[in-house]
Amino acid sequence: MPSQKTIKESKTDVLIIGAGPSGLMCAVWLARCGIPFRIIDKRDGKIFAGQADGLQSRSFEIFQSFSEDQFDFVTLDKAWKASNDMMEMSFWSPDEKGNLARRSRIPDFIPGISRFHECVIHQGKIENWLCNSIDEFSEGKVKVERPYLPVSIKIDETKKDDQDYAVEILVKKLADDMAAPEQYGNIANGLFRAFEGDQDKFYADHVSEGNVEDFELIKAKYVLGSDGAHSWVRKQLEIEMQGESTDFIWGVVDVVPITDFPDIRSRCAIHSKDSGSMMVIPRENDLCRFYIQLKEVSREDDGNNTADGAKSKGRIDRSKITPESIVKQAKDIIKPFKLDVTDVSWFTGYQIGQRVATGFHRNNRVFISGDACHTHSPKAGQGMNVSMQDAYNLGFKFALVCKGLAKSDILQTYELERKKVAHDLINFDHKFSRLFSGKPMIPSAEKLEGSTNEEGGVDLDEFHQVYVQGGKFASGTISDYQDSVMVKRTGAKAREGEESEGVFHPLANKVAVGRRLFSDLVLGQIDYKLLHLADKMPSDGRFRVLIFPGDLHQHKSNWDILNKFNDVIQGEDSFVKRYTPVNAFGNSVIEILTIHASQRNDIEFHDFPQFTRSIDFKGRTDYWSIFSGAGKSYDGVSVDIYKTYGIDKKAGAILIARPDTHIAQVVEFSLDGLKQVDEYFSGFMIDQRNKVSPEKDKSVNDAIRFVQPRLAV
Amino acid sequence: MPSQKTIKESKTDVLIIGAGPSGLMCAVWLARCGIPFRIIDKRDGKIFAGQADGLQSRSFEIFQSFSEDQFDFVTLDKAWKASNDMMEMSFWSPDEKGNLARRSRIPDFIPGISRFHECVIHQGKIENWLCNSIDEFSEGKVKVERPYLPVSIKIDETKKDDQDYAVEILVKKLADDMAAPEQYGNIANGLFRAFEGDQDKFYADHVSEGNVEDFELIKAKYVLGSDGAHSWVRKQLEIEMQGESTDFIWGVVDVVPITDFPDIRSRCAIHSKDSGSMMVIPRENDLCRFYIQLKEVSREDDGNNTADGAKSKGRIDRSKITPESIVKQAKDIIKPFKLDVTDVSWFTGYQIGQRVATGFHRNNRVFISGDACHTHSPKAGQGMNVSMQDAYNLGFKFALVCKGLAKSDILQTYELERKKVAHDLINFDHKFSRLFSGKPMIPSAEKLEGSTNEEGGVDLDEFHQVYVQGGKFASGTISDYQDSVMVKRTGAKAREGEESEGVFHPLANKVAVGRRLFSDLVLGQIDYKLLHLADKMPSDGRFRVLIFPGDLHQHKSNWDILNKFNDVIQGEDSFVKRYTPVNAFGNSVIEILTIHASQRNDIEFHDFPQFTRSIDFKGRTDYWSIFSGAGKSYDGVSVDIYKTYGIDKKAGAILIARPDTHIAQVVEFSLDGLKQVDEYFSGFMIDQRNKVSPEKDKSVNDAIRFVQPRLAV
Repeated sequence: MPSQKTIKESKTDVLIIGAGPSGLMCAVWLARCGIPFRIIDKRDGKIFAGQADGLQSRSFEIFQSFSEDQFDFVTLDKAWKASNDMMEMSFWSPDEKGNLARRSRIPDFIPGISRFHECVIHQGKIENWLCNSIDEFSEGKVKVERPYLPVSIKIDETKKDDQDYAVEILVKKLADDMAAPEQYGNIANGLFRAFEGDQDKFYADHVSEGNVEDFELIKAKYVLGSDGAHSWVRKQLEIEMQGESTDFIWGVVDVVPITDFPDIRSRCAIHSKDSGSMMVIPRENDLCRFYIQLKEVSREDDGNNTADGAKSKGRIDRSKITPESIVKQAKDIIKPFKLDVTDVSWFTGYQIGQRVATGFHRNNRVFISGDACHTHSPKAGQGMNVSMQDAYNLGFKFALVCKGLAKSDILQTYELERKKVAHDLINFDHKFSRLFSGKPMIPSAEKLEGSTNEEGGVDLDEFHQVYVQGGKFASGTISDYQDSVMVKRTGAKAREGEESEGVFHPLANKVAVGRRLFSDLVLGQIDYKLLHLADKMPSDGRFRVLIFPGDLHQHKSNWDILNKFNDVIQGEDSFVKRYTPVNAFGNSVIEILTIHASQRNDIEFHDFPQFTRSIDFKGRTDYWSIFSGAGKSYDGVSVDIYKTYGIDKKAGAILIARPDTHIAQVVEFSLDGLKQVDEYFSGFMIDQRNKVSPEKDKSVNDAIRFVQPRLAV
Repeated sequence: MPSQKTIKESKTDVLIIGAGPSGLMCAVWLARCGIPFRIIDKRDGKIFAGQADGLQSRSFEIFQSFSEDQFDFVTLDKAWKASNDMMEMSFWSPDEKGNLARRSRIPDFIPGISRFHECVIHQGKIENWLCNSIDEFSEGKVKVERPYLPVSIKIDETKKDDQDYAVEILVKKLADDMAAPEQYGNIANGLFRAFEGDQDKFYADHVSEGNVEDFELIKAKYVLGSDGAHSWVRKQLEIEMQGESTDFIWGVVDVVPITDFPDIRSRCAIHSKDSGSMMVIPRENDLCRFYIQLKEVSREDDGNNTADGAKSKGRIDRSKITPESIVKQAKDIIKPFKLDVTDVSWFTGYQIGQRVATGFHRNNRVFISGDACHTHSPKAGQGMNVSMQDAYNLGFKFALVCKGLAKSDILQTYELERKKVAHDLINFDHKFSRLFSGKPMIPSAEKLEGSTNEEGGVDLDEFHQVYVQGGKFASGTISDYQDSVMVKRTGAKAREGEESEGVFHPLANKVAVGRRLFSDLVLGQIDYKLLHLADKMPSDGRFRVLIFPGDLHQHKSNWDILNKFNDVIQGEDSFVKRYTPVNAFGNSVIEILTIHASQRNDIEFHDFPQFTRSIDFKGRTDYWSIFSGAGKSYDGVSVDIYKTYGIDKKAGAILIARPDTHIAQVVEFSLDGLKQVDEYFSGFMIDQRNKVSPEKDKSVNDAIRFVQPRLAV
């Protein structure tokens, strides 16, 4: 390795290592908020077929939140169109005679839990859409740099300031033809990534040689390691993985099936009598994915750690996993139905345990996310989702800190919030996997000659039940974030002590504090347009204060409160003024949205006090910050968001929403409540009034300023 | 001009002259169907701000129909997201005291007429999306060629075969800096295009000089002139414009208004007492467009024809139309409300009459569409829509003929079908314009001192009524096509003699024959997916036979009919086999969709006879051709398409839909009915069985063949 003295050096606010869905999601946030950052990956630029495929409700909500109309090439919302909806789950298992039969069909989603439901599409498509978004948000400035190998990482603990470039990462540019995936005949092959047991050797081979111009020393304020189950970053930080001592081997294949099996286009769990179990996942176009558990391998200590930090032994011979072997087992499972396959487009084998990292960061400077934090079976369609959601939690916090708007304390909430989700995931996966993989109990088996129910056979009713219960968790919409500097559950309580079902404040008793805000419809006061509140809360880095002043037409005194708010919020010391850079648009850090409970035609837009609508330096009004939450649209659609949120139409309420739309706090619609809002922001935001502001950013496009606010000037 | 002998020659199936919305729409069709074609325009590549802005329901339906999931860069469906919905129309006029007041507010669309309603967005965006679609559909092979000037056109009448290259067009490539629009300070200026009175000189200047390599002789089977109100093609064909002898002068300006006028984000018709009338059109982002009628000019015969073929005199001095003058009048009209403007981004003046071309084609070889066929005021937001719909009517017919699938007789239906629409448009515009531009009658004016109601003042109640009635027409969804080789209204009757309200067959008594099929929801039999029937009838050039076999669970004998259909349709002489090229996918010319009226879970996919689902050469099934039209989705959405279409659940029906989703014929669900289907296609389709087929197209992507069928191999 060349001497560091001769190596070129560079600086960036955030370095992301690993450009899978998790790293890319963080990059999307940083690009959207205008943060200088880089993202590197050791793979070359090929987009693989296959990989993860399930997209859950919450992931679609996140995609939608980045897909504002003014961005032509942010096509993340295309995911919802192009992916295959899985409306239905079918359960197949032996009937009383031991013949495979459809036992039940249920919706494969929780109706009403979100605007979206689970769909499937291959990971490469999603990575493409994320890359397009990064490109558009960053105005072409940021692309994934690949193949780049990280060589060493060092945190300078003497650098204490949030804006110090305290992390030094040495990286090496590889030749373009490195790291190409294997092929099995013409079939794309996921084994290459699934069994990266030779990581150490791979690194050893590639960092020791090369010319000085291949190396670069990157100094970053913050680093994210989103480099997968075998995370190099995690290894450098010496973070352990904890969990199960058993590994499962899964075989996965993408094919177009030719079959008379009737439910081939529904998600199916098939428990055969003697040939094992299979999950059928109908995919985009007419592809189908089969998941089959091939084997369990127990891990024994052979004195070595594997790359993923756990003790290892008993790795399977991966040459034995072929598309043919997986399809052969599928044929046995699905009997007596016929199964042929064509268009075999991808296959893989996973050897994976259920483990969670003991920590998600070092020194609040270097973080890990996604598979680097948690490994589990592919069964519940969770991997890509939880991984993207990890980064979605972290990205806006990086942005707030790098912009100097918030203290770096907020970064500590990342581990607090996401580690719990990871543990919940592992618990769910554990329960689900055992039930899925076990041999089924045959109903009334004693009647069948020659059939034996093994001790501990899987009760399929229990399986069915666990599946339904798990759906809520799996949707990703009920992740609850705990009390912290960014979440204040003051006054909120669990119902009947069931904290896992959320905590609620009496003033908005259907809004779980700490959970993402469920979106419901509202009507634009200015134009009577019907829209989802979530679409007025896009992922642009802003906090939102949602004021619910009740029914102003019925309760005239509520106007008085609203008018008093005007003095406070328009005042020079208000939380809005304190935390917004001097030359930035007034609503570019904290946006105020007002949702009243009167019929839209009973009141007029200009009756509302000034603070409810932004006016910019040219005198132009933001017309889209006042909404009616009651009544009917011209289309005949009923709107009652006060009911949905459990807010009284006389008392009203105020909700604080973080940039990720998680509800931070619920307070009274009163001057006291407004004071609590002030206190919330005081807890971690940095006063901007004494800072020297850069000259007003000329790059802001005036014509679209209201729909494209940036975090600061 | 150089001798034609030395000029390079080329061939193409279709040449489109003029790349506005109409020409581009035709190009989208041809690209989608894989037809060799070219499209030229005399303007350079600049996308203008401003221009037309209204998009009606039917245009959105058409955009949606091209936006199939598998085309990543066909972003026409983005129009629905990015444009500004106009939910509401407000009427403002003097009250009893002569003060400007809101007289009423109504929805600006007919609820339930379509999945979509009117929106506004500037034409440049739409042209961009159309160009992206052409690019993707043609796999990058076709771009608009510009600036290209057509020089001469000649139809060789001795060439009689449909596939002959019977039209010769001499074109000249101009220098890139020709034809650049004028600027008024920094403001984009539409006057350049609006007053193209110097066309003759422009042509004379540019065709007489230049080198031989600038010229090209294009031989085409068919030509479309979509070259605007001053159409060069129309002039060459010596087609006259007929209609009104009065021209109106309109001033139009796009601004961001700063105002206390309360309805600035609704569409408004404002009739001031003495300062004239204005239409307010809220646009995308926070732009607003003001339309103001400036003047009426009567045309007197000065012995010359203008470029648009009408007699001319009294053209306005266009230097007097400035953004300032338009805004000044707007300020007067909107008084006593304040009005300032910023971000003035575009303006224009139109001098336009209400006229329709006497013919839409010559020799069934050269056609005109869009503004070349009809000119009218911009008031009703119709121009771009009717123009695109013209081309949408013609494009698939070109494709069917050029592929050798249908006889060129079908091209004659274009004029028949679209000329009626053009006349309806002019009649509507005529009525609407007079009412809009007249001075308002002031209610109870006799009570007001000093006020006088002029003779013939506009009754604003009448205006309101005409507006509402016109909305249905304006939506573009009720264009009825008359009897022809492609539409058979046999057995269909008007209700109470009102033919303008559509003609209906008793077997489907809510489906107007000759009109585009209203889309309703259905449930996928295979996967219980809720979807719009229209989304299973994309614009890919295919005819569809929609079989409604009734409630098969209740009426078992209907299974027998369906099974008998199998013998006919699977037979070697069936209409499907006769008209599909030998090596093409079985459903690539005529697709059969079956929509039954049973609950989805009462019957099974594999109960249906073979003909209801395509099986391809690899044995793969098309699972998405059988639907349930009754019941509830897992989301709780009710589906009852039999009710929507007025089809009896015992009797059933068969509908034939053209590639543009217009219903061609309604027949009985019986073998007799099926015979009529056969006869329908026999009327104009060409038997493919004796033709030599090209080798199977290897470019068909197997994995997506079911969602991306091409017209033929």
